[in-house]
Amino acid sequence: MIASRFAHRASARSTLAFIGIARLAFGAGCAARQGDPLPSWSDTAPKAAIVKFVEEVTREGSVEFVPVSERIAVFDNDGTLWCEYPVPLQAAFAFDEIRRRAPNEPQLAADPMVQALLAGDMKTLLAGAHHDGLLKILALTHAGMTTDDFDARVDAWMAAYRHPRFDRSLADLTYQPMQELLRYLRANDFKTFIVSGGGADFMRCWSEPVYEIPPEQVVGSTAQVKFELRDGTPVLVKTTEHVFVDDGPGKPVGIHEFIGRRPIACFGNSDGDQAMLEYTTIGNPRPSFGLIVHHTDAEREYAYDAHPSGSGKLTTALEEARTRGWTVVDMRGDWKRVFPVER
Amino acid sequence: MIASRFAHRASARSTLAFIGIARLAFGAGCAARQGDPLPSWSDTAPKAAIVKFVEEVTREGSVEFVPVSERIAVFDNDGTLWCEYPVPLQAAFAFDEIRRRAPNEPQLAADPMVQALLAGDMKTLLAGAHHDGLLKILALTHAGMTTDDFDARVDAWMAAYRHPRFDRSLADLTYQPMQELLRYLRANDFKTFIVSGGGADFMRCWSEPVYEIPPEQVVGSTAQVKFELRDGTPVLVKTTEHVFVDDGPGKPVGIHEFIGRRPIACFGNSDGDQAMLEYTTIGNPRPSFGLIVHHTDAEREYAYDAHPSGSGKLTTALEEARTRGWTVVDMRGDWKRVFPVER
Repeated sequence: MIASRFAHRASARSTLAFIGIARLAFGAGCAARQGDPLPSWSDTAPKAAIVKFVEEVTREGSVEFVPVSERIAVFDNDGTLWCEYPVPLQAAFAFDEIRRRAPNEPQLAADPMVQALLAGDMKTLLAGAHHDGLLKILALTHAGMTTDDFDARVDAWMAAYRHPRFDRSLADLTYQPMQELLRYLRANDFKTFIVSGGGADFMRCWSEPVYEIPPEQVVGSTAQVKFELRDGTPVLVKTTEHVFVDDGPGKPVGIHEFIGRRPIACFGNSDGDQAMLEYTTIGNPRPSFGLIVHHTDAEREYAYDAHPSGSGKLTTALEEARTRGWTVVDMRGDWKRVFPVER
Repeated sequence: MIASRFAHRASARSTLAFIGIARLAFGAGCAARQGDPLPSWSDTAPKAAIVKFVEEVTREGSVEFVPVSERIAVFDNDGTLWCEYPVPLQAAFAFDEIRRRAPNEPQLAADPMVQALLAGDMKTLLAGAHHDGLLKILALTHAGMTTDDFDARVDAWMAAYRHPRFDRSLADLTYQPMQELLRYLRANDFKTFIVSGGGADFMRCWSEPVYEIPPEQVVGSTAQVKFELRDGTPVLVKTTEHVFVDDGPGKPVGIHEFIGRRPIACFGNSDGDQAMLEYTTIGNPRPSFGLIVHHTDAEREYAYDAHPSGSGKLTTALEEARTRGWTVVDMRGDWKRVFPVER
């Protein structure tokens, strides 16, 4: 399994490299000016604000200068770095895992929530304030196996995944402007972190080939693992104990616990990112930057905010953006391209 | 507070830089050969084993080659990177904090465990299987304040600290051979992490100036913080909820949660490091290296293993070292120097 995992990751990395080459070839023709680090961004306010911030904090001797070790940038994942519709990738994984396993696991198939899922009864799954049915499905697919087993399942699923509307693989669902932004920040000695409500174990399977973000720079929701020696060999068994949900006020909590210092730049797309935007930008002794990706492009991607049909509700954070001076990206007008490879 | 914290860290960093210069000046005369990256190590088996491992995993094209992103090295702190006697630094901090605060805080002074501490009654503090009195002292000094407040207290205490036997500051209590080892590994593109039973918040106050290890590469014991807006300003309040103890089997658990991949090199000094040594070296598909610092030098430092008078019991891990091929450092014979500045 380990070997297949490495092989898959190497393959995913090759795909990414190919995308990078395609992007460079394409970018050369359409970049507004030679050497533009953000060629997929329109020459509108958000791009100007990003470049201004980065140039200020990296200019040695200026009052805004921030030492390299403090250049921490945090990114939400679903809806900020890649497409979260029609359902976040991790939910799609959980649903497909149940469908794959149920025929061979009678005990699993007998669970009422599994039966609801197999019958397409989302109402039952999402009932209750805490969506207990959905949590049960997540527990059934994310605990009880070793971390190596889990990684192998995620890798296999990811390799086969195609987006239902765009018929694209995983790497092709990332936002090209955000990929450029990640690289631009890293080229200016920022350390880029994912801070997402998604499971840390799930995201760490592909963060490096997809975003060039290593596992140790992925902060996500967690449940504790248990260390065991099985036949003399160490394994880590995934449990549902000590669950930490890295969303809403949990995001600054996760940032403190995993990173241990305050970011100076924060990128999100929903009310779940509001607390980490506040933590990054309010009363920070260093210059700071906040940005919200507003999904306004039903044609090239999806349009949603106050009344989403799925994830990504954006109301209070959008309201606060005005008073805090957070940059709001109008996906339709501010991005020349959305995906690495447009159809 | 932030300003004083930065100032202190800058000062600590200057001290470290000075130590570095002193070390280089001294090292130039005594290094066994020109350009020796480990001049404070005797030319005995441990040094040879370290160099052999590093040369193998960095030799491109060899079967032992490990890609840069997987060169993760984990270090215990107390007793592995610096002196843990007569008491670990964090316990000394907690005791001094109680002594400093008790005269001005009647409620604190009324606590039976505080009274035991002030009376020097360690027997009461350490009673019970879980040392409940000591845990109470830790809770009183590590929770109930904001993270900024806590950092300022640690910084102020650290700046004033002198070791009771050696009359040395904090940075001068680190082991010079281990400082050289950290730098040698980093020069070979290893990412160095601390994985310690100490509190993450405590260690992150000084890990960067003392070891050049940034906060995000410090894995330690944690309790959850709570995000609040106080008068519109974000703060993180330290609590005693969701305690995670990063020791024993908790170390591989912490490594998985915070780093998300398996180390290839692990350095410890006690039975509390045994599980992470096992996790690093047994059944690892990559070449791996385990090392135990054995405290055998009562003259230059301390001698302890099976019957320590304080922390650092070393029995089962030393036994397992033989069968696993872990390198054991005899501090007396294998280290030419112990501290950066010898008296």
